[in-house]
Amino acid sequence: MPTVEFLPSGLSAEVPPGTEILEAIRQAGIDLDASCGGQGTCGACLVRVVAGRVEPSASPPAGEIDTGCVQACTTRVLDGRVTVEVPEQTGREDGRLVGEDAERLPLDDLLPGGWDLDPLAARCLLQVPPARLQDGLSDLDRVERALAGLSEEWSAQEVVYTLSAMRTAAEALRASDGLATATLIREPGRLQLIGIEAGNRTSSVHGIVVDLGTTTVAVQLVDLGTGRILATRTDYNAQIPCGVDVISRINYARRAGGLEELRRRAVDTINRLIHRLADGQEIHASEIVSAVISGNTTMIHLLLGLPPEYIRLEPYSPTVLESSPLRAAEVDLEIDPYAGVFLSPCVGSYLGGDITAGLLCTDLATDATDISLFIDIGTNGELVIGNAEFLVGCACSAGPAFEGGGIDCGMRAASGAIERVEVDPETGRARYSTIGDVAPRGICGSGIIDLLANLLLTGWIDPAGRLDRSRASPFIETDGKRARYLLVPAEESPTRKPIAISEAGIENILRAKAAVYSASSLMLAQIGLAPSDLAKIYVAGGFGRFLDLEKAIVIGLIPDLSREKFRYIGNASLMGSYLVAVSGEFRQRQLDLARRITNIELSADPAYMDQYTGALFLPHTDLGNFPSVAGAVARARARGRGSANG
Amino acid sequence: MPTVEFLPSGLSAEVPPGTEILEAIRQAGIDLDASCGGQGTCGACLVRVVAGRVEPSASPPAGEIDTGCVQACTTRVLDGRVTVEVPEQTGREDGRLVGEDAERLPLDDLLPGGWDLDPLAARCLLQVPPARLQDGLSDLDRVERALAGLSEEWSAQEVVYTLSAMRTAAEALRASDGLATATLIREPGRLQLIGIEAGNRTSSVHGIVVDLGTTTVAVQLVDLGTGRILATRTDYNAQIPCGVDVISRINYARRAGGLEELRRRAVDTINRLIHRLADGQEIHASEIVSAVISGNTTMIHLLLGLPPEYIRLEPYSPTVLESSPLRAAEVDLEIDPYAGVFLSPCVGSYLGGDITAGLLCTDLATDATDISLFIDIGTNGELVIGNAEFLVGCACSAGPAFEGGGIDCGMRAASGAIERVEVDPETGRARYSTIGDVAPRGICGSGIIDLLANLLLTGWIDPAGRLDRSRASPFIETDGKRARYLLVPAEESPTRKPIAISEAGIENILRAKAAVYSASSLMLAQIGLAPSDLAKIYVAGGFGRFLDLEKAIVIGLIPDLSREKFRYIGNASLMGSYLVAVSGEFRQRQLDLARRITNIELSADPAYMDQYTGALFLPHTDLGNFPSVAGAVARARARGRGSANG
Repeated sequence: MPTVEFLPSGLSAEVPPGTEILEAIRQAGIDLDASCGGQGTCGACLVRVVAGRVEPSASPPAGEIDTGCVQACTTRVLDGRVTVEVPEQTGREDGRLVGEDAERLPLDDLLPGGWDLDPLAARCLLQVPPARLQDGLSDLDRVERALAGLSEEWSAQEVVYTLSAMRTAAEALRASDGLATATLIREPGRLQLIGIEAGNRTSSVHGIVVDLGTTTVAVQLVDLGTGRILATRTDYNAQIPCGVDVISRINYARRAGGLEELRRRAVDTINRLIHRLADGQEIHASEIVSAVISGNTTMIHLLLGLPPEYIRLEPYSPTVLESSPLRAAEVDLEIDPYAGVFLSPCVGSYLGGDITAGLLCTDLATDATDISLFIDIGTNGELVIGNAEFLVGCACSAGPAFEGGGIDCGMRAASGAIERVEVDPETGRARYSTIGDVAPRGICGSGIIDLLANLLLTGWIDPAGRLDRSRASPFIETDGKRARYLLVPAEESPTRKPIAISEAGIENILRAKAAVYSASSLMLAQIGLAPSDLAKIYVAGGFGRFLDLEKAIVIGLIPDLSREKFRYIGNASLMGSYLVAVSGEFRQRQLDLARRITNIELSADPAYMDQYTGALFLPHTDLGNFPSVAGAVARARARGRGSANG
Repeated sequence: MPTVEFLPSGLSAEVPPGTEILEAIRQAGIDLDASCGGQGTCGACLVRVVAGRVEPSASPPAGEIDTGCVQACTTRVLDGRVTVEVPEQTGREDGRLVGEDAERLPLDDLLPGGWDLDPLAARCLLQVPPARLQDGLSDLDRVERALAGLSEEWSAQEVVYTLSAMRTAAEALRASDGLATATLIREPGRLQLIGIEAGNRTSSVHGIVVDLGTTTVAVQLVDLGTGRILATRTDYNAQIPCGVDVISRINYARRAGGLEELRRRAVDTINRLIHRLADGQEIHASEIVSAVISGNTTMIHLLLGLPPEYIRLEPYSPTVLESSPLRAAEVDLEIDPYAGVFLSPCVGSYLGGDITAGLLCTDLATDATDISLFIDIGTNGELVIGNAEFLVGCACSAGPAFEGGGIDCGMRAASGAIERVEVDPETGRARYSTIGDVAPRGICGSGIIDLLANLLLTGWIDPAGRLDRSRASPFIETDGKRARYLLVPAEESPTRKPIAISEAGIENILRAKAAVYSASSLMLAQIGLAPSDLAKIYVAGGFGRFLDLEKAIVIGLIPDLSREKFRYIGNASLMGSYLVAVSGEFRQRQLDLARRITNIELSADPAYMDQYTGALFLPHTDLGNFPSVAGAVARARARGRGSANG
């Protein structure tokens, strides 16, 4: 296998021929934050190949490449020994820390009230009586009796022991006069005992919570003893070079070795985040005894190495929707090998565990009267409408635009991401703020929505998303038929390259918002409801710390309803997974939820194309759907003194 | 690690320094049948060290060693490269095949009547309906429904899937129009689905059944589809060089690395037998989907890598008596990694799963009125008395004599073993027959009992086991105070070395039979019964194809009762394990049995030493206990015209 050596660190990695340099960089343990996630668009992963044979897998973006420099994400290692110089990145360390905060919304606001800490994995303190000749009990018999004494629920259940627990039991029970700590995983109908240690070790018990998104992966480290979230980290899914959406990943999985590669990339992404979290908290990864993982149905199939092929083919039957807990070692998670891995149950091929987790953060499924809408905007948009009586869900393919994918200067909500933007109506100049108040590196979901809405409201783009070439602005740059908007001009950019968004990028955003909006209106229509029938609208997604709902309505992403009905709940999939990790009751609720949701297939509806096409405009071709913003849009349109295109 | 190369085969093995050459020979995959199991007594494993550094771990028996030759079992490899010449053994291949027959008693005689084939692991043919858009079921949902349709019992149980099964499901269900084969393991309260394959694969499903003895290991290959036993193989437990009985093994486990070495040796012994069985039947070891393993409590602890220390120390509390099914990969068994490993439940520290398996071959525990005795004579003797109302058990340390251990010319019941012996009253010459009718290599349990009884009945030994030196016989050889009996003189022996038994060997037999007899009479006394209260006596053990019960009474191994009360049932532990493997009902019976038996500790009884000492004579100091043989013994004693010692 080719060996890639990195300068100046001296680190190296052995990788199969054809591996992208970016993947080799990750395997060598070097942090290089390619803000586009390896799609070859952001240019942040430029490296210099000093020696050895490499091959570009895509043509580099024009004007971005210095002599000898290649994009690590689109350049493959061929064979032999390759030496690559990786430039130092600035603000990286800060970036990851600030980026975490960006993902964290106030916990108390989000969590439903009235639940008990009752985690799926727990450490219990046992006082195990000594062995006695008369009673003929084995060590494990005595452990079982001590456990049964702790809880009525447990005493009724079968207790099973892993070999690892059996092997330490004899010494553990005798080292501290029978005072011992048992580590338990709650499986359906039984307790799995994975460890027995001497003395009181109950203060050290951790779980991880994973939102495995198509584009972004978030991992949270939780103290299961207290329920406290210790830290959260996010990164791009290392599968991105294999395709930006689930359909292209499913296609990639059909290649020889493709499925295993995708599985490996997903697992590696999670493991890297786990190790960073564990290192940051100075705990050993082996002290992590449970994992709750939520993802769309395809992501879960890829993580488990299940062929995803039939998710894509009618009648869209996945291999598994709900699975029993697995062991960490089976899934290759680098935590306690016997840790319980709980997968959030999926509803259908395109309605995944992210939504059954996310719904746990809302009252939607339990409200006895009011009907609400839940919208989770990820690379797949997933929506659920209902109340305690009924639940109907659907999915749409939004693409990664709101996570920064497919946008020239897009990035995920991390340090240096522009999260808020205003646009000067006269000059077109952008005023922005970044996550962490550092120099800008790109723009994240909340910034994209702000930018698009403000460009529309200032007349710099028309309802079709085209930039106004007719007004002289140094921030609109044209090149033949193509135009782009300079969010940060070259001279203000730390890389001396402008941070810009092209019309092609804007079109990707329009397609994403059109998919989400048309899905919500079509689903409402299918069940005979008007938008005004909705009591609440929960909006979830990895946009950033906040989402300006007013602006989201201006661009037509969400329906134009009374503002107090809306609630932005951030990464609800992650938060719901956390609830499952710390509460057996929420695990049960989630399983019940998943079975209750009726999955409807929108693409089969003949009205779909009409709805979608209408929603491709800002905010919509039918301004009657957006009464509260129609006036402002019309005024802006008038101010734009006739664009070159329209 | 040192490398040992073997001539003439050219095979080699890498082993840690200090490993015996015999173990390296086994690891290299060379069959060398050391009939004493590596105790350094039989001399069958002589090899020539051609080059390299080795060290004897024990002094070789006098007069056995040619120049340059060492015993492979008592010589340790030091370091670097060692080259060893292994002489060809004759009759080896035949030996193993005949040896199998020796272990097999007529099945119909042994098995209780009226049971259904209902194995713990099964392959079921499923007709899984195709996926339909409307019903929203996953592949596994449809498998589960098809399974539930097969059995009412199953439809009530939770079904859990291994990752291996999940990974093949999608293709398997679509390759043969939904006709698929599911491989199931029946765990308590749930069905574990470990494989899904396309088409009808129900004809290929195998299990192994293991009797893991302290001295001898027997493995049986079973067709779980039909219940047919395909083949049985036995070998010595490769742990023997670490100690000949459970106490010495427990001590060995306290050394650094000792427990892991013992675990490895047990697993390797089983795996070698599995591979031979699978190769012989031309099946792949991965087609073996269950294992039922019975052994004494210490053997099971060592197999699982559990510290056996506390089995030996008062109050004798083992780590585990009854365990849930494990996976083959956890135990390192080289079969399907997800195969279910079912361990026969143990009763106490010295009353193991071999006895709960063996009892299944009898009516002892179910007889409503008659009280019976079950005696399993292995390196540990284990006894149970009872009926449907009560069950009491105890154990005694017999040592390996009846399996050929600790006897100069002893060997297990395999090809070339002398299984029957008569002794000429006048000349002392032995007439014998061997298993497989081949040249004699040693003597097995049934032969040892025959020999001892006949030497006694012909007056060539006295009741204390001393040879009669006073009568001139070419078959009694003296060397100072020591004497030995030449069973096969040098000139008739294929190795040109006599096959002989020393007085020290005879003493080991006396100790073994005394332990068994005193345990049975003491247990009877403790529960207030006389031997004549027993309706049946089941005798089990690895003596060979048959056991001459008359002779066993003559030497005082078993009580002198009406002959029709006795039944020799051979390796009942293996046969009972077979019953468990093919019948869920027997698994349940066994678990119930184990919980019913009251374990009593004989060594705590002050009468123990008296009983034992009396039983050290042939048949006993108190001939009143042996009325039917007393006359014959007295006549023989008179014929022995006064030995030099008595």
